[in-house]
Amino acid sequence: MIETRTFEISTQGFSDIIDITGHVEREISASGISDGIATVFVPGSTAGITTLEFESGAVSDLRQSIERQAPQDIHYEHDARWGDGNGFSHVRAALMGGSFTVPFNDRRMLLGTWQQIVLCDFDNRPRSRKILVQILGQ
Amino acid sequence: MIETRTFEISTQGFSDIIDITGHVEREISASGISDGIATVFVPGSTAGITTLEFESGAVSDLRQSIERQAPQDIHYEHDARWGDGNGFSHVRAALMGGSFTVPFNDRRMLLGTWQQIVLCDFDNRPRSRKILVQILGQ
Amino acid sequence: MIETRTFEISTQGFSDIIDITGHVEREISASGISDGIATVFVPGSTAGITTLEFESGAVSDLRQSIERQAPQDIHYEHDARWGDGNGFSHVRAALMGGSFTVPFNDRRMLLGTWQQIVLCDFDNRPRSRKILVQILGQ
Repeated sequence: MIETRTFEISTQGFSDIIDITGHVEREISASGISDGIATVFVPGSTAGITTLEFESGAVSDLRQSIERQAPQDIHYEHDARWGDGNGFSHVRAALMGGSFTVPFNDRRMLLGTWQQIVLCDFDNRPRSRKILVQILGQ
Repeated sequence: MIETRTFEISTQGFSDIIDITGHVEREISASGISDGIATVFVPGSTAGITTLEFESGAVSDLRQSIERQAPQDIHYEHDARWGDGNGFSHVRAALMGGSFTVPFNDRRMLLGTWQQIVLCDFDNRPRSRKILVQILGQ
Repeated sequence: MIETRTFEISTQGFSDIIDITGHVEREISASGISDGIATVFVPGSTAGITTLEFESGAVSDLRQSIERQAPQDIHYEHDARWGDGNGFSHVRAALMGGSFTVPFNDRRMLLGTWQQIVLCDFDNRPRSRKILVQILGQ
């Protein structure tokens, strides 16, 4: 069995990190599938998905780490060619990846107690993101 | 068809990198599924899973690269707030990701000859980790 | 239902970044599966798979970012032990990861408009890479 479900998230961009665990949980619950995997996927090339203990300290630490990994204030060829100023966003998204697969049993994801699924929006402006949850199982 | 299997691994923390390929292989073999995908998943927010040629040189190189990516000796807001001293662990785990999906046919994973699945425990103390293998296929 | 499909890609190595979206699309179309997930997997420990807006600026930016993350000209223990000079390749591949799972409906992947799936070959010589597409769904 397979079900495709979606939800929308508004972001501020600039490495906005948003807890989407509850949304994913609801989509799995609402599906007719009790055991399987859910692939959480953000279409687009300026956002990523990972997991984090979602508390303000770790959120701030991850943002600073990403800033060191692909700084906003260095030269990007993408910007020189296209002038949209989000070369850093593209690099950050490619390094993190926008697909995350999580197992679930009895409609409950098998995450750790202090582990949340987070959307990281790396674009240089507020965005509305459509998140896909592709659910496979029985 | 779907099967959820688990195994336990003891680690030393501090970027302990452990070859878990044999464990995953055994869980796939022991399942009734011959062709499909296995999602190898470590619950928690201070560990990651990836692949590596598991020899001491590459293990050491990966550990040093992770140390440069999120150094242990810089300031982390997580530590300032919670005092548990593992802010670097959280950042490293979020950057690597704790979910890895591998295809298999005839109960054999389709890995390269010198490619192993590794658990990276980034926490700042020894841990016992429960690893999930969610197996889907036929 | 499950189908295993493969295709081959020639690369130049040294962080050669190649758009493989069309290949993956053809393999999904050629399968008998209309809705599901495809796990795109590169066997081996010196290559990775991610997504990117595939234009020369962003490609160049990602390559430079990877060069900063795991520079080619620093010491690697892997090289000291094995003398094959591709220690940087192993580290880059472990950090990026070689497995990417993408959802599809009606045989079309649910990628963003300017989002391509890319193979990144980090080895230090030209390679011929066999890419696996493990397709699950109905």
